[in-house]
Amino acid sequence: MSLHLLLASTSTVHGQPYLGYFKEAWTAHFAQGTGPVVFVPYARPGGTSWDDYTAHATQAFEAEGIPMRGIHSFASPAEAMTEARGVFIGGGNTFVLLKTLIDTGAFHAIDAAVRNDLPYMGSSAGSNVAGRSVGTTNDMPIVYPPQFEAFGWIPYNLNPHYLDPTTDSTHMGETRETRIKEFHQFNDVAVMGLREGTWLEIHGTTSTLHGPLAARIFTAGNVPVEMPSGPFSL
Amino acid sequence: MSLHLLLASTSTVHGQPYLGYFKEAWTAHFAQGTGPVVFVPYARPGGTSWDDYTAHATQAFEAEGIPMRGIHSFASPAEAMTEARGVFIGGGNTFVLLKTLIDTGAFHAIDAAVRNDLPYMGSSAGSNVAGRSVGTTNDMPIVYPPQFEAFGWIPYNLNPHYLDPTTDSTHMGETRETRIKEFHQFNDVAVMGLREGTWLEIHGTTSTLHGPLAARIFTAGNVPVEMPSGPFSL
Repeated sequence: MSLHLLLASTSTVHGQPYLGYFKEAWTAHFAQGTGPVVFVPYARPGGTSWDDYTAHATQAFEAEGIPMRGIHSFASPAEAMTEARGVFIGGGNTFVLLKTLIDTGAFHAIDAAVRNDLPYMGSSAGSNVAGRSVGTTNDMPIVYPPQFEAFGWIPYNLNPHYLDPTTDSTHMGETRETRIKEFHQFNDVAVMGLREGTWLEIHGTTSTLHGPLAARIFTAGNVPVEMPSGPFSL
Repeated sequence: MSLHLLLASTSTVHGQPYLGYFKEAWTAHFAQGTGPVVFVPYARPGGTSWDDYTAHATQAFEAEGIPMRGIHSFASPAEAMTEARGVFIGGGNTFVLLKTLIDTGAFHAIDAAVRNDLPYMGSSAGSNVAGRSVGTTNDMPIVYPPQFEAFGWIPYNLNPHYLDPTTDSTHMGETRETRIKEFHQFNDVAVMGLREGTWLEIHGTTSTLHGPLAARIFTAGNVPVEMPSGPFSL
């Protein structure tokens, strides 16, 4: 049993089609097997429906010859996992995603399957839930989930869409870095700021950062460090 | 029994001292009475300690001749409220604030006192909690509070530090407006985007927006509207 994870900062890079910027990675990730990739539309970006969101993702996958089916079209999440060649949780609102995963029973079914070798892909909110908790999401808490603990497949948290501070801003709202520092006043969990256009690939004990930008690693009590693309351990 | 609220978008406007931009408003708000204004440091901006944060706020208040004392220096939050001429909840992390208010029993004590005429002031996170829920905070969910419901003194939610979308950005993270639209997929509560440098003054049934900028009002299913400064009802 080992993990096979592809965790992307974002689904879409400016000026490119949906999932386009790391297409080679996910087509390879899901090349094996006979069943569909099961899509989890629960994060509902912009409030879009499960069906509409699934159709959007399916279009991108089927253009690459990979069959896809929404998790809600199966009799149960557990049944979906038995037929799946892999699972992809799309981005949207992390709180809505986590609450729906738990309310539907999909949380346990997906967790068991992914820990038992099923290839997983997440983007944005779907990457957030791979971490220890959703405590470093950028999203608004628009619904109240029964917990903040996430799947914990990786022993750190992600902050997708990581944005560097803009030094010329006069806005007094907290920067992303300030928010993550506050997180570390209350949590001793490393946080990886994953910049747009980058993604993680994890197979068992081997982890690699891909894409054109470094990641920023925050640990409690320490100055953040830049982590270049390539293999890493954290 | 009526409410007396001063709800500021931010504590500090760029280039001005702490609480400086609406000093005339809060000195008038807390001019009556003999006891101290009770400061609630629970939101701990940047993880600062209760004592340090209280000292910071006290310096600003005592420079205007208004005595101040931290809520944690009383035997209990209820005792603090009996001695207070008013209460000020400072900004920081909304989740930490709400959780600590509930864990300490201050939530109930402050709620009862404010509903019974005690003048209240909030900035940023301290304004957020005056609304129906913390569901439109910008903060990271760094701790898990037992509820998202807030004081509900006003029948809508606030989004402090409201930022207009930047039309030239290539960043794919959601804009503030997109996030609030997502909130309205799940909640039928009006949201006021309160821009920096503006504040609300509420006395009983009379509400007024102060400051140099309009507020932006979001309601479920409708196009957002700009609300100019001056009296309003919502």
